[in-house]
Amino acid sequence: MNGDSHPAPEQYMPHMRKLSLSDFMRPSRRTNGVGIQADETRICVVMVGLPARGKSLIASKIVRYLGWLSVTAKTFNVGQYRRLGTPNPPAEFFDVHNEEGEKLRRAAAEAAVADMIQWFSNNEGLVAVLDATNSTKARRRWIQERCDAAGIETLFVESKCDDEDLIMSNIKEVKTTSPDYKGQDPEIAAQDFRDRIRNYEKVYQTLDEDEQDLTYCKLIDVGGQVIINKLKDYLQSRVVYYLMNLHIKPRCIWLSRHGESEFNLGGQIGGDANISERGELYARKLPELVRQSTGGQQLTVWTSTLKRTIQTARFLPYEKLSWKALDELDSGVCDGLTYAEIEERYPEDFKSRDADKYNYRYLGGESYRDVVIRLEPIIMELERSENILIVTHQAVLRCIYAYFMGSSQEQSPWMEVPLHTLIKLTPRAYGTVEERWKANIPAVSTWRGKGSQAKHQDPVEHGPGGEGSDGPAESEAKDTPAK
Amino acid sequence: MNGDSHPAPEQYMPHMRKLSLSDFMRPSRRTNGVGIQADETRICVVMVGLPARGKSLIASKIVRYLGWLSVTAKTFNVGQYRRLGTPNPPAEFFDVHNEEGEKLRRAAAEAAVADMIQWFSNNEGLVAVLDATNSTKARRRWIQERCDAAGIETLFVESKCDDEDLIMSNIKEVKTTSPDYKGQDPEIAAQDFRDRIRNYEKVYQTLDEDEQDLTYCKLIDVGGQVIINKLKDYLQSRVVYYLMNLHIKPRCIWLSRHGESEFNLGGQIGGDANISERGELYARKLPELVRQSTGGQQLTVWTSTLKRTIQTARFLPYEKLSWKALDELDSGVCDGLTYAEIEERYPEDFKSRDADKYNYRYLGGESYRDVVIRLEPIIMELERSENILIVTHQAVLRCIYAYFMGSSQEQSPWMEVPLHTLIKLTPRAYGTVEERWKANIPAVSTWRGKGSQAKHQDPVEHGPGGEGSDGPAESEAKDTPAK
Repeated sequence: MNGDSHPAPEQYMPHMRKLSLSDFMRPSRRTNGVGIQADETRICVVMVGLPARGKSLIASKIVRYLGWLSVTAKTFNVGQYRRLGTPNPPAEFFDVHNEEGEKLRRAAAEAAVADMIQWFSNNEGLVAVLDATNSTKARRRWIQERCDAAGIETLFVESKCDDEDLIMSNIKEVKTTSPDYKGQDPEIAAQDFRDRIRNYEKVYQTLDEDEQDLTYCKLIDVGGQVIINKLKDYLQSRVVYYLMNLHIKPRCIWLSRHGESEFNLGGQIGGDANISERGELYARKLPELVRQSTGGQQLTVWTSTLKRTIQTARFLPYEKLSWKALDELDSGVCDGLTYAEIEERYPEDFKSRDADKYNYRYLGGESYRDVVIRLEPIIMELERSENILIVTHQAVLRCIYAYFMGSSQEQSPWMEVPLHTLIKLTPRAYGTVEERWKANIPAVSTWRGKGSQAKHQDPVEHGPGGEGSDGPAESEAKDTPAK
Repeated sequence: MNGDSHPAPEQYMPHMRKLSLSDFMRPSRRTNGVGIQADETRICVVMVGLPARGKSLIASKIVRYLGWLSVTAKTFNVGQYRRLGTPNPPAEFFDVHNEEGEKLRRAAAEAAVADMIQWFSNNEGLVAVLDATNSTKARRRWIQERCDAAGIETLFVESKCDDEDLIMSNIKEVKTTSPDYKGQDPEIAAQDFRDRIRNYEKVYQTLDEDEQDLTYCKLIDVGGQVIINKLKDYLQSRVVYYLMNLHIKPRCIWLSRHGESEFNLGGQIGGDANISERGELYARKLPELVRQSTGGQQLTVWTSTLKRTIQTARFLPYEKLSWKALDELDSGVCDGLTYAEIEERYPEDFKSRDADKYNYRYLGGESYRDVVIRLEPIIMELERSENILIVTHQAVLRCIYAYFMGSSQEQSPWMEVPLHTLIKLTPRAYGTVEERWKANIPAVSTWRGKGSQAKHQDPVEHGPGGEGSDGPAESEAKDTPAK
């Protein structure tokens, strides 16, 4: 233990135990390895920073990342509580001399903290993110004392950024997406928001030597310098590790499966087949599709090491990298078989897989959970990067998609990701925007509903996939030439 | 990409690919997943700091940790090169006004850097650690330029520490273990070493704003505050993540298997059996054994969640925590079987396991590689902690032992860890010291040589285990009452 920075050890009770990420991350063929939850660490991540420093984006990323690793996390956004009484406050509301505004903002913070403490007491999760400016030492001390009293650790995360371009791009983002400016003229909204920032600047106190007893992580020009103070445990260090890899510059992620492969035609899974004739047509059309969706922005292409992704990407006029970690889910002894053959040879396994597809591990192969674990370097490198187009495989794409969209473990393995379709994801402070471009080149369907052993099943015939598919709910499906 | 801090993307070559930790860490039943190595990142970790700040300890920990994760790393210790010409230099040798000394020290640094660059060109590894004080900006700039020219990334790691107790304990350690003071009077050695530190202090420059273009990690009072500047990629962030969790205070780790279990008696593997009568005797004797080995130091006990470890630890008068991540390697369909039964039912598997025990994954279960991956939170929490006694299982103990002792993946799964034996590990700057205390309570042997399906095989009868066992080569075996 690191002196007094370590939490007091718990009393030993054989039925209680320390819960850790490894419990969730442990590969196990049919269970998710989650056991008794008793003594686990509870952490309140307290965001700190002026408006337009990417706090809400960082908060939502922490929550999605942890959820993806099976650690339940939730954002408590003080602005949402404040909006219940004051939906569209003018900049003056945030002036420190506005007593009424000050009172209402304080009440909103109290309500958010009270709900958060209740959420922890109900055992609803392990990590809460308190998303607000928390711009004064007094406010931070108050939060720390409230959390201390409730047995919750605090991890302060400050985003400090003086990069004018980045701030302006965040202001532009806020004026068009923040609920505070709903229905308002964008130019007036931007001016009001700049005034609001100035009101905060008057009282803003950065985390400094007076607060050396706090556990904190200070992100200076996110992605540039990071100062980490007195981390207390593994889960905190894991969150900070993730934050170390983030930046908050605007960028997009494109996802595409490889073009239709010869294995796809025969309904076989796995393997390292070439793309089919129609797959080749997709490969030739992909550069145009990408151009339409980028409007000329630069990007880097990542493929797996398997032939079908490399062949699909080969006409793209960008830098390319191939990653072993992007290879398709390893189907072990079932590699090269059709679903009908799998059901015939491994009937028990076929049923188990449908019962819990996320955790099912093919004999000698992998589960979706295994893929999530091996994607860790991909996610970290993605976070470090700007525009990236990933050409990969159905199961891997589902996992990456789930990371960005926050899809559940029940739903993501059943998600429909048709061949010959380009998906564009744009991370925003209040959610990820999805667009899809179809190449209009026919391909077999490789989607399979629960219980089915059909070679090529049309997901549309079976409706939105019942409980199986989470569909493009948050998305805007676009056909070429949509833009 | 984070602006200009990102390395230039490589030209795309289908047969070349970006190598990442995930390639090594990917669970795969029979192979280690290592593919072509071509475009991978190469990093020189450059230690920075005054003498007695734990640099060599940190360097050796980085190398062992990465090796444990299958990333080949090596320390290049400038002192070792300098000792070739000047084996036992007095403090004056390190005076900046000593021109001859300065010349020899510079030559040693040049030789170490040249060897390191050669090592990278020979594709012998991915991470080199340059262990020296590197205490001036000029020296650091020279190293960075040499590495840049050779296409090697630099990551400067400064250990800055003003904690007098910690420095004194490091001085005490050095005077007894450093080759520089071999055969000298410890008091004279300590005085000389303090003089040497003063000579370094005269010219020492901490990493500061002049070096903002460098990628660095500054550890202030290791475990307290960490400043991270301009990380460039995943592997760097992974190394820094590890460093964030370290401290360099003296401490020990104790390892014990559970007492003999009822399954052990019948030669069955896995399960959740109770301890046997002799196992109970061990549990009752363990507190005395621990007392003998600690000399009264405090510690915390970690067990798995399985009954046999909790029962074994129950008489220990210390705080206890049980971890799911410490549960025994999951033997899947073989759980509860004897080796003879496994050979009968799964003859192919039995052979495959012996051929590559580290990577072999039981059907529906785990491999040693899987266990190493799930031990990640255990290792990080261990590094954050002080004295810890771990009561766990044979395979898990072998993995933890390999982490501390740097055992190879070929050897560690065959290592002999007898029942009813307490192992004490003391991490030192120049290696980990091992001691063993035997309880002198009989127990069956659970060690199994390659090809054997015997219930209880005596490892001694078969010699030191041939290629199978790595034995206690670096250890000092002690019987009660050894201390």
